[in-house]
Amino acid sequence: MKHSDFLNSSFSEENPFMRTEDIVSWFHSRMEAHRFLIEEIPFADLKEWGFCKETGNLCHKSGRFFSIEGVKVRTNFGSTVEWTQPIINQPEIGFLGIITKKVNGVLLFLMQLKMEPGNINMVQLAPTLQATRSNYTRVHQGKSPPYLDAFLNKSNSRILVDVLQSEQGARFLRKRNRNMIIITDDDVPVYDDYCWLTLGQIHRILRKDNIVNMDARTVLSCIPFVQESGSVSAPAPPPATESGAAGARFNRKLLASTLDTQCHRHSTDEIISWFTEHKMKYELEVARIPLHSVKKWTKSDRDIRHDDGKYFSVIACRVEADNREVTSWTQPLVKAYERGIIAMLLKEINGVFHFLIQAKVEPGNFDVLEMAPTVQCITGSYRDVPEEERPPYLNYVLNAPKECVRYSTLQSEEGGRFFREENHNIIVEVGDEFSEDVLENYIWMTMSQLKDFIRYNNFVNVQCRCLLSCLGFI
Amino acid sequence: MKHSDFLNSSFSEENPFMRTEDIVSWFHSRMEAHRFLIEEIPFADLKEWGFCKETGNLCHKSGRFFSIEGVKVRTNFGSTVEWTQPIINQPEIGFLGIITKKVNGVLLFLMQLKMEPGNINMVQLAPTLQATRSNYTRVHQGKSPPYLDAFLNKSNSRILVDVLQSEQGARFLRKRNRNMIIITDDDVPVYDDYCWLTLGQIHRILRKDNIVNMDARTVLSCIPFVQESGSVSAPAPPPATESGAAGARFNRKLLASTLDTQCHRHSTDEIISWFTEHKMKYELEVARIPLHSVKKWTKSDRDIRHDDGKYFSVIACRVEADNREVTSWTQPLVKAYERGIIAMLLKEINGVFHFLIQAKVEPGNFDVLEMAPTVQCITGSYRDVPEEERPPYLNYVLNAPKECVRYSTLQSEEGGRFFREENHNIIVEVGDEFSEDVLENYIWMTMSQLKDFIRYNNFVNVQCRCLLSCLGFI
Repeated sequence: MKHSDFLNSSFSEENPFMRTEDIVSWFHSRMEAHRFLIEEIPFADLKEWGFCKETGNLCHKSGRFFSIEGVKVRTNFGSTVEWTQPIINQPEIGFLGIITKKVNGVLLFLMQLKMEPGNINMVQLAPTLQATRSNYTRVHQGKSPPYLDAFLNKSNSRILVDVLQSEQGARFLRKRNRNMIIITDDDVPVYDDYCWLTLGQIHRILRKDNIVNMDARTVLSCIPFVQESGSVSAPAPPPATESGAAGARFNRKLLASTLDTQCHRHSTDEIISWFTEHKMKYELEVARIPLHSVKKWTKSDRDIRHDDGKYFSVIACRVEADNREVTSWTQPLVKAYERGIIAMLLKEINGVFHFLIQAKVEPGNFDVLEMAPTVQCITGSYRDVPEEERPPYLNYVLNAPKECVRYSTLQSEEGGRFFREENHNIIVEVGDEFSEDVLENYIWMTMSQLKDFIRYNNFVNVQCRCLLSCLGFI
Repeated sequence: MKHSDFLNSSFSEENPFMRTEDIVSWFHSRMEAHRFLIEEIPFADLKEWGFCKETGNLCHKSGRFFSIEGVKVRTNFGSTVEWTQPIINQPEIGFLGIITKKVNGVLLFLMQLKMEPGNINMVQLAPTLQATRSNYTRVHQGKSPPYLDAFLNKSNSRILVDVLQSEQGARFLRKRNRNMIIITDDDVPVYDDYCWLTLGQIHRILRKDNIVNMDARTVLSCIPFVQESGSVSAPAPPPATESGAAGARFNRKLLASTLDTQCHRHSTDEIISWFTEHKMKYELEVARIPLHSVKKWTKSDRDIRHDDGKYFSVIACRVEADNREVTSWTQPLVKAYERGIIAMLLKEINGVFHFLIQAKVEPGNFDVLEMAPTVQCITGSYRDVPEEERPPYLNYVLNAPKECVRYSTLQSEEGGRFFREENHNIIVEVGDEFSEDVLENYIWMTMSQLKDFIRYNNFVNVQCRCLLSCLGFI
């Protein structure tokens, strides 16, 4: 295994187990093989879940899984200096893991079709293993998740990626998961609903809406394409493309941005200094409070919602799924009020692509700031306001000419917690007319630099990581 | 400026402004030029400080600076699973900054003789700037600290180091400071109590007890010796040494450990995986509680102390210093009950020195674990117990033959918060008889790898950083 094997797999759709054009029909056949049901229910019909008398928090009776609590936030970032809100508290670190294996010289990824109650289309493509600690310590008395042993007992495999990564800081209080990729030489049984895919095939289906789930995207974003200590093994040339010269240029610049160690606009030390300065500048105080102390949110029989109908609501649902460890259960979910935009501007600087990254404060962040996409906002924050009051750089995204849009799909948030939440994921290339000088809490970074920050965790937020994972060779 | 300028400065004691042998007498002359006084006082004599009625917390009336509060800790790390203790809460991020300048081809560091109330010897060698936010926003109405502008307005200088670093996790609740080194081409006025020194000179005086303060040591530990992206500029040969062949070997191996990108025992990704695994394994819950809810600690007129006389006490003192921004004040200090040991084992592996690093949980850590020295403990945890119950690897330190001790001095903790606290800092080289296989929460790392983790912050704890900063070429 060399790091360049990742790159080669991302160039390749050669796979003896599954042709790219068959992936979607495999999806459909597996969905037909199962019976899934999800319905919204009143909170009173939740089993094993209830509101704590003392705090009003919505908790599982075991005290495990997750709970809906309140936070009081004070910050000098943005225009709102103080607010309270419900938040998901899930202190347990879970596993998100992918098993890989080299077959005929190409690295293949074992992916799972996984049903989650909040999923659009019910099933989405997930990592080999997706397990909370409560799952694998079997709090809910179900079966042990398949392939768990490969990650717990790594003697027959080598670790390629193993890092804690944050999740949505606006919704989760400091939630993190352990993102892992391992490689094995062993024979791996392939169960129903699992399938080997190349990275190139995964990138191909990442160009469709709501197929690859968030957990898969965050794990894929952690792939390092270069060797340690900056020594880059001679890469294969980027793949030929159906879109001609423009596609070839895109692939060449993307490869350069991925392997670059020289042409960056800012050195990594400069970026660390910029980040340090903003961590010092922005204050964030987050106090946990009882859910019933959260102001401007009202609980009814069926939901907890913001009084102005903004942001999200907390609902309850009943789920049946014949292929899960537990085949029926009830649980709370978070339901977004509206779709959002997650967008990044891309610009060729010094011959390589640079991404415009934002230093963003969110209440659930582990450490005040994380590196976020250029734009990360809900529709309500721009639909009803004049152009000049929109979030920075959003107009470049909304008004981008079609030929500058390098990526544009709807992608889902995690269906185990979020009810059919999708966000518009967009990457737009800007040209010479867009200045290299940007607002002070924004900075240009290459893919290679972003990959380094992802490696050391607590730097790049989940929206940014997932968007980066979507950007493959075309 | 090249990164190798740091290395050359650490080889050099050539300095037109100060000969190495004159540093100590300069110290004495500056001490005689000032009048300092410190005395312990009853809490009732504290001015501007008091115990909050509701919580019992010891706070400044402005709400700024720091406060003494309580925490309740639960963890599965170590033998005590739950306890309460007083802790220092200092949410403000302060500056610790050093100005450097190249003179006759050698990089010089502008160091300050700074008085702090808790200092052994009253004054110690400090960074150019050492300022809390309350200092430089002038909450206490004093003069603005000298050289502050150079760090706030960096237009005439370049940043070499700019990173947030943690402080003592057993004493501070998530405290951090911004560690900076800048280089300037400008003329820099050198005020009384300030002096230019080479890094080699600083390392020379780091071999004496309690002269270089903790703030200087942590900033120095952040120095990167290699270029970004692993390209190492041809280093000068390590300096000739007075101690002959043994010294030459030591210098050669230390240089190799500092520049190494190939000979490490574990790749950086393996170390990150090891760290991730232990972050998942160890749980740490820290809840802030009122100081008067802390159990087994008792408050008298003059101190707050543990009922068994262990750990530390909180005291109050009155200070006079004619060279500080404010010339007299009262404040609380934390007084350690006894001296501790901070020790690292060093072993030649693959031709370069490797340090034995521990993954250690402390209640004030930002993120559960930090990388700590091989041994970090107070005397009480080994003096009265049988050898086999001592902390891991401590016996190798206590029983080390003299010729294997590479470093051994007493070094002070921060005199602005700690009253005359010193710890024995020791580095011991072990030989072939010491196995490369170590306990599971320990791992071997080169200096170069440790420097990378220091760069991305939240990895290496202050004890480990400060001990590393002491290790110069001999």
